[in-house]
Amino acid sequence: MSRAPSDLELRLARAGQEHLLRFWDELEEAQRAELCAELQAMDFEELSIFFQKATEGVRQFSQLEKVDARMEPIPREVLGSATRDQDQLQAWESEGLFQISQNKVAVLLLAGGQGTRLGVSYPKGMYDVGLPSHKTLFQIQAERILKLQQLAEKYHGNKCTIPWYIMTSGRTVESTEESFTRHKYFGLKKENVIFFQQGMLPAMSFDGKIILEEKNKVSMAPDGNGGLYRALAAQNLVEDMEQRGVESVHVYCVDNILVRVADPRFIGFCIHKGADCGAKVVEKTNPTEPVGVVCRVDGVYRVVEYSEISLATAQRRGPDGRLLFSAGNIANHFFTVRFLRDVVSVYEPQLQHHVAQKKIPFVDPQGQLIKPDKPNGIKMEKFVFDIFQFAKKFVVYEVLREDEFSPLKNADSHSGKDNPTTARHALLSLHHRWVLNAGGHFVDGNGSRLPAIPCSAANGRAETVTADANHNLKDAHDVPIQCEISPLVSYAGEGLESYVAGKEFHAPLIIGENGVCELVKDGV
Amino acid sequence: MSRAPSDLELRLARAGQEHLLRFWDELEEAQRAELCAELQAMDFEELSIFFQKATEGVRQFSQLEKVDARMEPIPREVLGSATRDQDQLQAWESEGLFQISQNKVAVLLLAGGQGTRLGVSYPKGMYDVGLPSHKTLFQIQAERILKLQQLAEKYHGNKCTIPWYIMTSGRTVESTEESFTRHKYFGLKKENVIFFQQGMLPAMSFDGKIILEEKNKVSMAPDGNGGLYRALAAQNLVEDMEQRGVESVHVYCVDNILVRVADPRFIGFCIHKGADCGAKVVEKTNPTEPVGVVCRVDGVYRVVEYSEISLATAQRRGPDGRLLFSAGNIANHFFTVRFLRDVVSVYEPQLQHHVAQKKIPFVDPQGQLIKPDKPNGIKMEKFVFDIFQFAKKFVVYEVLREDEFSPLKNADSHSGKDNPTTARHALLSLHHRWVLNAGGHFVDGNGSRLPAIPCSAANGRAETVTADANHNLKDAHDVPIQCEISPLVSYAGEGLESYVAGKEFHAPLIIGENGVCELVKDGV
Repeated sequence: MSRAPSDLELRLARAGQEHLLRFWDELEEAQRAELCAELQAMDFEELSIFFQKATEGVRQFSQLEKVDARMEPIPREVLGSATRDQDQLQAWESEGLFQISQNKVAVLLLAGGQGTRLGVSYPKGMYDVGLPSHKTLFQIQAERILKLQQLAEKYHGNKCTIPWYIMTSGRTVESTEESFTRHKYFGLKKENVIFFQQGMLPAMSFDGKIILEEKNKVSMAPDGNGGLYRALAAQNLVEDMEQRGVESVHVYCVDNILVRVADPRFIGFCIHKGADCGAKVVEKTNPTEPVGVVCRVDGVYRVVEYSEISLATAQRRGPDGRLLFSAGNIANHFFTVRFLRDVVSVYEPQLQHHVAQKKIPFVDPQGQLIKPDKPNGIKMEKFVFDIFQFAKKFVVYEVLREDEFSPLKNADSHSGKDNPTTARHALLSLHHRWVLNAGGHFVDGNGSRLPAIPCSAANGRAETVTADANHNLKDAHDVPIQCEISPLVSYAGEGLESYVAGKEFHAPLIIGENGVCELVKDGV
Repeated sequence: MSRAPSDLELRLARAGQEHLLRFWDELEEAQRAELCAELQAMDFEELSIFFQKATEGVRQFSQLEKVDARMEPIPREVLGSATRDQDQLQAWESEGLFQISQNKVAVLLLAGGQGTRLGVSYPKGMYDVGLPSHKTLFQIQAERILKLQQLAEKYHGNKCTIPWYIMTSGRTVESTEESFTRHKYFGLKKENVIFFQQGMLPAMSFDGKIILEEKNKVSMAPDGNGGLYRALAAQNLVEDMEQRGVESVHVYCVDNILVRVADPRFIGFCIHKGADCGAKVVEKTNPTEPVGVVCRVDGVYRVVEYSEISLATAQRRGPDGRLLFSAGNIANHFFTVRFLRDVVSVYEPQLQHHVAQKKIPFVDPQGQLIKPDKPNGIKMEKFVFDIFQFAKKFVVYEVLREDEFSPLKNADSHSGKDNPTTARHALLSLHHRWVLNAGGHFVDGNGSRLPAIPCSAANGRAETVTADANHNLKDAHDVPIQCEISPLVSYAGEGLESYVAGKEFHAPLIIGENGVCELVKDGV
């Protein structure tokens, strides 16, 4: 193959992408074949339309004031709240468990991302944040599914299955599947764990030219977590759900160590409300917190990103003093299968991509690899929440951040926030609270009960004498009491009384499926 | 002086503290004189009573459940809120400014602490957190006082003074006073800055023996921020306030970079309510946040420390979903001078000290310096809020944390929280919001307006292409837009329209008393 195939040359010429063959003459035979295969698989006309629509979108989007002025808060009647509707939580949970027992609930994991910011080259789900058990995020989630199946069976006498759909990408597919195989699907049945891949799109320069990251390789990236819908369609997965009798799907991101997969309360709430689409949110309490908020714009539900909102709007408060736009999106959604059916067949193709300006490494015309220091091109993505606007009945369920949301994004060394340490602490603190709420206690070396809210002294880190005038606020980053409870023992704090009520423990405390274990060692 | 004075020996023997002279024979003449002077100044009988009462207090205190069960939340009618009572803020502010214009308001700074945790050997008030102006905390506070005097004069036509009482300790007195002298009192009049020292108390072992930190030196520490009242009495400062015609005092801690000294809204609110004592608080939103809460116990107001509260109580919520005990203490108080008069003469002497178990370096009987690795003794302290219980009319004023509270406690290297970086960012972000709220805008190098909520891309830190599936939550530790406004220009965001309305700025932006200055340089 001394020349590129003429049909490819023609297609590239028509699309204005001839530069992709710029280095053809320099390539080895194998490299030529690789590049050819990559380019032959691309639909340049479609790409060109994506690019045009997406960049048009940006122009509209830059009319900031207008979107901002059209925002309306979520009406109380579509909101369920773990703090304000405590009297209804039990009913929602029962409904959710009943649905699960009838094999009507599936979970869908968005796991197309690599742990780049986390500083690892493998999928985030394989990360071990350093819990006493050293379980990975995948294992924690798998065991929560197992436990929920058991709970549903216990309450409704029905052996049941929660199928687990796992969306990977070209970058994570192999290691993810290999990890599940190696761990025997963490106790789940292989046929109920369904892997599929999201699509990839090339990065493009601001004038629509596809970017080469090597002489024979296009710069490709996953098409955003909203690539979910195209992937569901391409791989007939809605049909798979229908064949299994699934009616409700819980979609979530891999990086949240506290995620309540297939949360029966959330599912029960959505079903009680007759919703086809729902978002789980946490309360945004500070106007400038960088989180997207779920709200209505022109009467239609959507997520407004924090970069789209003016300060005046972000600061608005209701008569109760809360922020008017407080529904912080945590990428945690409910969809009926019926809604997904309509989305993949009718709605999704209408959606335009979002544009993210990025610093994209590229080979320049001289063949040098350049790492730009400011954005030089765009990545096109869809977002999983882009389909909210098509819902016939949309609802929002607000939960407590400390109970349900602690994402793993950064390396410890890179940021004090959303890192392995904060994730580990969030889980240990939650399990510590579970023990206290079930009537257990923790004691120190002298047998004195430790305070419920850990402080330095309680952790054996008492300070030397200092003359600090302000005693009353200590460092919240204090090491929590080490307490880990296997998801196989408790899904969300339930059923712990028989293990802990009225008992006193020394940390670290581990409650696993084989019983209670206190590791006796000094300090932490 | 080959022997210790016999009266001292006698007093020590009676008090069971003879060990303090254990190394007498080994000491040089000058060391003996030093030790003698230190011990002669001590009232061992009083100390013994302090120790007995304080340790009795601990025994009562360990009956945790009881205090916890008696906690009642703050009734709505004694609560003023910056978010829920927005319609009254203007009236409170006017009242406060009027009081200031009549010379009836003083501020009192608690600055007895060294920057030990911060990693510096000088007083915290002298710390420069790295603002563009490199102003210290002392200078920022002084300039806020100056500005308030101007505002009060502007609105009420009266030239006025806010006297500033500054409590130092044996550890901070010299460098604090020297710093004020060197900086010509930061523009204030010398006679209106009144320094005074809080007392010191010796550290004691668990069985009541005073601890030697050197062979000729007792381990001494300041007597807690509640040492304020004893110091006011000893130095006749309530009389000083009365002679100046002061009626209201705002007491605060040095380490809060956002502190609104003599906050007219807070003072006006307290006066409108007819209160003799008030606490400014921030909302506690997470049950396990380590902050003391203001509440009632047996019908009396007090601060319940986070270590005293059970999880069940900390988690309790009202029908509106808020925590029932949410009034987070930030050591920021209002007192009438009349109340202070009663406190120093009648109430304070009744208060017992709190006990803090500490790791206290000591010389052992062999004369070796030992640094213990677990608590070996106690420090006795009173707290500034111990007097709430004596108030006839107590009120609580809730403000926004991001507007008013960011304490400086730790070194950057030691903790991701409450450090110079978080303090600097808190101030820059606040001033950024002031500019936006006054109608100004920030633009990037291309002239595009930056989002109100800064994100990575807006700060020129756009990332390389990654495949992160969860786009919607970014790192809140992102570098804020660099924007600093001198307190001499604006006390709390007011009066900026003429500088910024309708204008576009490049960061860093500095607005000082000499005008607006944009530093043109690349990046931050």
